[in-house]
Amino acid sequence: MKDSERIEPVPEATSHRLSLLLRSLRGLESAGVHTASSYEIAARFGLNSAQIRKDLAQFGEFGVRGVGYRVRELKAHLKALMGLERTRVLGIAGAGNLGQALANSRNFNADGFRVAALFDSDGRKVGAHSRTGVPIRDVSTLEESVAELRIEIGILAVPAEGAIPLAERMAAAGVGALLNFAPVTVPALPGLLVKNVDLTFFLENLSFQLAMTKG
Amino acid sequence: MKDSERIEPVPEATSHRLSLLLRSLRGLESAGVHTASSYEIAARFGLNSAQIRKDLAQFGEFGVRGVGYRVRELKAHLKALMGLERTRVLGIAGAGNLGQALANSRNFNADGFRVAALFDSDGRKVGAHSRTGVPIRDVSTLEESVAELRIEIGILAVPAEGAIPLAERMAAAGVGALLNFAPVTVPALPGLLVKNVDLTFFLENLSFQLAMTKG
Repeated sequence: MKDSERIEPVPEATSHRLSLLLRSLRGLESAGVHTASSYEIAARFGLNSAQIRKDLAQFGEFGVRGVGYRVRELKAHLKALMGLERTRVLGIAGAGNLGQALANSRNFNADGFRVAALFDSDGRKVGAHSRTGVPIRDVSTLEESVAELRIEIGILAVPAEGAIPLAERMAAAGVGALLNFAPVTVPALPGLLVKNVDLTFFLENLSFQLAMTKG
Repeated sequence: MKDSERIEPVPEATSHRLSLLLRSLRGLESAGVHTASSYEIAARFGLNSAQIRKDLAQFGEFGVRGVGYRVRELKAHLKALMGLERTRVLGIAGAGNLGQALANSRNFNADGFRVAALFDSDGRKVGAHSRTGVPIRDVSTLEESVAELRIEIGILAVPAEGAIPLAERMAAAGVGALLNFAPVTVPALPGLLVKNVDLTFFLENLSFQLAMTKG
């Protein structure tokens, strides 16, 4: 991914570790584990337990000496910290293959997220629904839909040329954060956090590793 | 993303910076710039020039004292280093919305990558082509297609339950690296580098930042 935000209140690496930590805690909870040491929590995803303790210490006192961490309590604290204690509503601009794939994905409709609508300008798509039932609205209704559906996070799954105008419309409509899949860098806008995702980075990383290991 | 590789010869952060550096060099070259300082190269993507010099120094001597870096030469070296001096062939398992979106994307068909085929088990899709002309083959032909098309990187865009068996088939067929979008962690297999992509991490990062800045 590339990231064009000018001010990032939480380093991406910290956020990434906390996401892994949350997955670890969910796993421990499903397995019926009530308390766990930072080592046990970290081991599940190959995290460093000292780093985990340091990350958590930044945000308050979660551990109990001699007992370790109470899994359910720590999970609840972590979800609150990450703003995941309630469901955040997503709206996706672009009802093409990528937009529909994201709208239907389990990842975007579980554990704190829900896709409320797709937006498109293609009259043949508007009024229809994605496979899992996400309605496709006319993109001309974007502003009123953001307010009506309380969309907090916008997703751009549109061609490059449409991305920045749509980001500006979303920012003006009150969307707080944007995940951009269009092949262009969208700058952070006043009041709008932006994360630009470029899947080429993953391919380049694999190519680099192939070159290092196999030539 | 999450990353289940046990041995990663190049740290992901380094790879990410080199990917940004490559984009910077492409931009400078298009702008007709012949030589540039590490500062100029770094500035384009908000990179740290000292870090860039350190990264490059690990891989050889690229700079010329008093002149800076020769843009075209450095770009060529970097592409060779990252295994991007030739086109790597991709094969995508799963011709659903996500698979087709990736097959048609510019990112997966430029600058060192090309999608040669999609694979699916749905008889209604097999024999057809994606919008940009990528052929959809029967997944039963995966092994022979990998050899025939010289597929080096596999992409999984299938439901969770199909992912690991397909990864094993790809590894056995000689695919060297795998980018997994299925909502399950695929472990690294003998001879197969694996990168698991979980787009939820991006959403969680945005939610975290929203919670920190706006509540």
